[in-house]
Amino acid sequence: MRAFVMHRIGEVGVMEKPVPEPGPNDAIVRTTAALICTSDSHTVRGAIGDRHDLTLGHESVGVIHRLGSAVEGLRVGQRVAVNAITPCFVCDNCLRGFTSQCTQALGGWKFANIKDGAMAEYFHVNQASANLAPIPDGVPDAKAVYTCDMMSTGFMGAEHAAIPLGGSVAVFGAGPVGLMAVQGAKLLGAGEVYAVESVPRRQELARRFGADEVIDFTKGDPVRRLLDLTDGQGVDSAIEALGAEETFMNCVRATRPGGTISNVGYHGEGEFVRIPRLDWGVGMADKTIRTGLCPGGRERMGRLLRFLESGRVDPTPMTTHEFPFSDIERAFRTMDRKEDGIIKPLIRF
Amino acid sequence: MRAFVMHRIGEVGVMEKPVPEPGPNDAIVRTTAALICTSDSHTVRGAIGDRHDLTLGHESVGVIHRLGSAVEGLRVGQRVAVNAITPCFVCDNCLRGFTSQCTQALGGWKFANIKDGAMAEYFHVNQASANLAPIPDGVPDAKAVYTCDMMSTGFMGAEHAAIPLGGSVAVFGAGPVGLMAVQGAKLLGAGEVYAVESVPRRQELARRFGADEVIDFTKGDPVRRLLDLTDGQGVDSAIEALGAEETFMNCVRATRPGGTISNVGYHGEGEFVRIPRLDWGVGMADKTIRTGLCPGGRERMGRLLRFLESGRVDPTPMTTHEFPFSDIERAFRTMDRKEDGIIKPLIRF
Amino acid sequence: MRAFVMHRIGEVGVMEKPVPEPGPNDAIVRTTAALICTSDSHTVRGAIGDRHDLTLGHESVGVIHRLGSAVEGLRVGQRVAVNAITPCFVCDNCLRGFTSQCTQALGGWKFANIKDGAMAEYFHVNQASANLAPIPDGVPDAKAVYTCDMMSTGFMGAEHAAIPLGGSVAVFGAGPVGLMAVQGAKLLGAGEVYAVESVPRRQELARRFGADEVIDFTKGDPVRRLLDLTDGQGVDSAIEALGAEETFMNCVRATRPGGTISNVGYHGEGEFVRIPRLDWGVGMADKTIRTGLCPGGRERMGRLLRFLESGRVDPTPMTTHEFPFSDIERAFRTMDRKEDGIIKPLIRF
Amino acid sequence: MRAFVMHRIGEVGVMEKPVPEPGPNDAIVRTTAALICTSDSHTVRGAIGDRHDLTLGHESVGVIHRLGSAVEGLRVGQRVAVNAITPCFVCDNCLRGFTSQCTQALGGWKFANIKDGAMAEYFHVNQASANLAPIPDGVPDAKAVYTCDMMSTGFMGAEHAAIPLGGSVAVFGAGPVGLMAVQGAKLLGAGEVYAVESVPRRQELARRFGADEVIDFTKGDPVRRLLDLTDGQGVDSAIEALGAEETFMNCVRATRPGGTISNVGYHGEGEFVRIPRLDWGVGMADKTIRTGLCPGGRERMGRLLRFLESGRVDPTPMTTHEFPFSDIERAFRTMDRKEDGIIKPLIRF
Repeated sequence: MRAFVMHRIGEVGVMEKPVPEPGPNDAIVRTTAALICTSDSHTVRGAIGDRHDLTLGHESVGVIHRLGSAVEGLRVGQRVAVNAITPCFVCDNCLRGFTSQCTQALGGWKFANIKDGAMAEYFHVNQASANLAPIPDGVPDAKAVYTCDMMSTGFMGAEHAAIPLGGSVAVFGAGPVGLMAVQGAKLLGAGEVYAVESVPRRQELARRFGADEVIDFTKGDPVRRLLDLTDGQGVDSAIEALGAEETFMNCVRATRPGGTISNVGYHGEGEFVRIPRLDWGVGMADKTIRTGLCPGGRERMGRLLRFLESGRVDPTPMTTHEFPFSDIERAFRTMDRKEDGIIKPLIRF
Repeated sequence: MRAFVMHRIGEVGVMEKPVPEPGPNDAIVRTTAALICTSDSHTVRGAIGDRHDLTLGHESVGVIHRLGSAVEGLRVGQRVAVNAITPCFVCDNCLRGFTSQCTQALGGWKFANIKDGAMAEYFHVNQASANLAPIPDGVPDAKAVYTCDMMSTGFMGAEHAAIPLGGSVAVFGAGPVGLMAVQGAKLLGAGEVYAVESVPRRQELARRFGADEVIDFTKGDPVRRLLDLTDGQGVDSAIEALGAEETFMNCVRATRPGGTISNVGYHGEGEFVRIPRLDWGVGMADKTIRTGLCPGGRERMGRLLRFLESGRVDPTPMTTHEFPFSDIERAFRTMDRKEDGIIKPLIRF
Repeated sequence: MRAFVMHRIGEVGVMEKPVPEPGPNDAIVRTTAALICTSDSHTVRGAIGDRHDLTLGHESVGVIHRLGSAVEGLRVGQRVAVNAITPCFVCDNCLRGFTSQCTQALGGWKFANIKDGAMAEYFHVNQASANLAPIPDGVPDAKAVYTCDMMSTGFMGAEHAAIPLGGSVAVFGAGPVGLMAVQGAKLLGAGEVYAVESVPRRQELARRFGADEVIDFTKGDPVRRLLDLTDGQGVDSAIEALGAEETFMNCVRATRPGGTISNVGYHGEGEFVRIPRLDWGVGMADKTIRTGLCPGGRERMGRLLRFLESGRVDPTPMTTHEFPFSDIERAFRTMDRKEDGIIKPLIRF
Repeated sequence: MRAFVMHRIGEVGVMEKPVPEPGPNDAIVRTTAALICTSDSHTVRGAIGDRHDLTLGHESVGVIHRLGSAVEGLRVGQRVAVNAITPCFVCDNCLRGFTSQCTQALGGWKFANIKDGAMAEYFHVNQASANLAPIPDGVPDAKAVYTCDMMSTGFMGAEHAAIPLGGSVAVFGAGPVGLMAVQGAKLLGAGEVYAVESVPRRQELARRFGADEVIDFTKGDPVRRLLDLTDGQGVDSAIEALGAEETFMNCVRATRPGGTISNVGYHGEGEFVRIPRLDWGVGMADKTIRTGLCPGGRERMGRLLRFLESGRVDPTPMTTHEFPFSDIERAFRTMDRKEDGIIKPLIRF
């Protein structure tokens, strides 16, 4: 089969690999659609260290090709979605309820990290009974594929934000994850959602996904604007969807005492991430900082797919580009360079 | 009446003041016993800015001297304890459940901050119906006075720590608040409590209040020791009871993915408090950072007093010194300089 | 002033009363708009015992006429909404966070119960600082009045239902409270909402407020239908919005293991309310039964009003009738007899 | 191997069976110690229907005899404890966090229900990686065996009771589960624990495990006594540890508004379990009714074992009798008839 791999830091390409074999609890999925994620670019640049001929990708849906002998409740030929995070569900961290931290910090993240990813004609899924989510008939692959990471991660950002019914929420960064955090905040009862973003196309999508106001941080201090919008109190909840220290600090500044900062962004640089001491209430203002990694598992995936089935959520306005898998290198390059106003490119197999 | 005041930054003394008058919802309490808190020293040094002839103190118990016309459920002559934090209970932050953040960040802290404190022969209490807690007959003033801040703050540290039943807890700093955090963690179901402390007398008290092991950070890296004690995973919960950046960072390092860092310490220095990025799981390890300020209110005070009534908690081993109010200046100086192995000095009126 | 009162069980009328006087923490509101609630009918029939010349009503908005000497943050002339429940916020139950249970079970319910209600030209509000919510300029009285009880109670039903993101919810009974529970469930992230109702007009409104399917219990067993809709598992959450034992039992039957039954209905009859033992999993199926009474307070009211201000919620399709206060007896009679397809009658002052 | 079985309703005996075989995710444990549970008696009497030659027992510890090919992190020869509840951890209910309700209501209960139990020389454990908990060296089998059900179930009763720090708790029934609920409530921060029990030996044990007062319901109305002890308010939390309707109703009556009733008892009789309507606050008093089934899993078992390792909990005073497995029929009979003051009989293999 053909797989899109990272040969080494800075070098990608398509190569031939054998179709993987399932262990007793595993499955092999034949890929039908996938999305490219910015984090693949980070990986290729060396964010998690060097890798050799590692298959990239963690946002793919497909059809069950083979099932391990101990897998239950599934059958070959079913259309399935698989989360980017594929926990074992039986280690201590999983049993504690932190399945994304499977066996160790971020350990649920296996695709294109500690094993081959899902941007290939076939891919391997561990603990298949719990990780494969059947896709309802009415939901096309091109929609379902958004549950793998974008909806799952963005919505988690909103779930962790402890939004009071009718509360105010600021989302910093309206990339795909931030856009889904905006959508998630609306789904979870926010009264007002403010998106902080400067790119016009993303601003427009933020409004489409439910932002009541978009704040352009290039035109004024977004914290000042958020305080003005909330009678000087700050928002109930702030979601960091970028992974930048300055944005994180603004979240702390813009959140009211008793509020929650929900960090979703991957912080990739520096030895420290700083909390502004006074805005943090000298460590006493009841401001809570939550973090998390996209939760996986078929049960949650089923709930995300339900929003697509009923039409209540439609993430496809984010699909600005579409490529066949044969064009994957061009697709990756376009995404890597953020050319042509790209938000998310869909790959068809 | 006589009051122990801060004349200006760096200068304290006893002065004569009129006995305060109650508004319709207020009370005046005649003081019988008080404790001196290290934060009074910080205030005198200028931590919250300059103040002029401001009465110090926020850990006092006494007898109701006068009641405002609209106060209900109390009577003159009752023995009462008053928390260091005296919220209004009717502003928006109070209604949201964050009474320590009354009207604004840390706004529940009124004594010796925005109004005269409680180290005087009489003191004024706002919203008396909700802030005065009757002291049970069997509980002497010298015990009850620990509910005003030490037990309230230390136990809050444990309540915020999300300790799983049988979980592991590290308490950084075994001053009076840290000692009560140790006690609180035991009360709340911790399986193992580790106190990080180097002063022998505090180490001994930490064991007495329930620490299973005391880690001397002067003899080795406490994070390394905590990881060793927990099979390399880290503790379920870490409580910062000192207010130092290094200690806060160690809390993040020593806490396992999915665990909670409960900050109790007042962070008094620097523009920022840094989070170690990798130990924080690049913002994705489900490590939650909680903060808070000692919650007030008679209902909670009543629950704290119950532990004293039944004898389950006895904080008085922390009372290393005792002074009459006439010796308050000497008492303050001893505490300020941490002389003579002082932990908490009791002031008798 | 004129007030609409219950003279005694079974007898209502308009009578002249003096405009009430405010105590130091109180306010007097001049009424501008009100709704009649079915519970007024229950009261008149004797549900809470006899009352003499008690003013009815608990869903009124108006303009501040007078303020007590100790009230802060408000001014005469402001347009305000007042919740049906007006807690003191300083008793032990309030301090514990259960403000609806102020001083005793259901003790936050003061209007038309332990003091005169709000269906009069003026009405008295205790603890005004915390109970008066300013109405935003863009929100007309005829909308704001729905926050007093219908939105507050219905949304509480959804908040108590522990709805997982994308979860399934059944609402039993689509009267005004049930309709707002449907709306609340959608606001709080439900993936599917099923309303159980047989009256065509209410069925239509249920769809309008977000029900994905309406189940007519006169045409088949609703529990069977709910199990069919959920692969035999039952819904994640069921909301009882009627106050009938049979409906409550159906909630228990239709909820999956680990799910939540949120009771909102007032259960007015019988010595017992029965739980079906086997469907309850013999007391071991992790099915949680929550109950509650509409929470009051300006902070929450402010969040409800925000939904009206942004237009995200519009409850006025429930206003099927409108009367001047001079016609209050006719309005009450129409509501009492549920004539003319009435859902909620608006009273103008 | 020899197994103690239920031949059919009402008939038990020892029979020879083959040592079970492990599937890829399973383990076979050689039993070293076990406890007999009252629920075995219920089963034999037909509570869950007829069974033929079904091995009884669900409280056993032992040594790993064989491991399936896919099991990780364990080795043959390790001493292990296994919870009475052995979930799969990968079905939808498990993924939702309700592992006791594995696949269906109470579905985590497999031993001596849907498969052979653990009162045999060897027993089979599904999903071994997650269900086998290594026993620390310092903990003898005779102690560890209490984590299988008694500590796990009793402590769950306390965990579900939402006990405020320093709160009041009533435990109805001081059988082994109730005694562990008393112990659990003390571990989780209760200020006062009241045990309702009439059998002297159990009363004495209740005091030993931490009850501040024992209420003998044969000498007066226990609800009246609990109200007297709590200023007429009722307790914060009540734990039903018997499985009787009258006791359940008393829990509702004795719990204050805003409090929690935690049901642990198996309700074995009648079509309904009744809630007293007025004491339930007509369905509006914020009284929450939780239920549950003993949670399994090695991670939780590890936390329970930690209490035994540190000596903080010692359940062995409940071991009133000890028998070799060769005497299992006599042991069962003694337990079944509750003869000779028996609380729990330990079986040695």
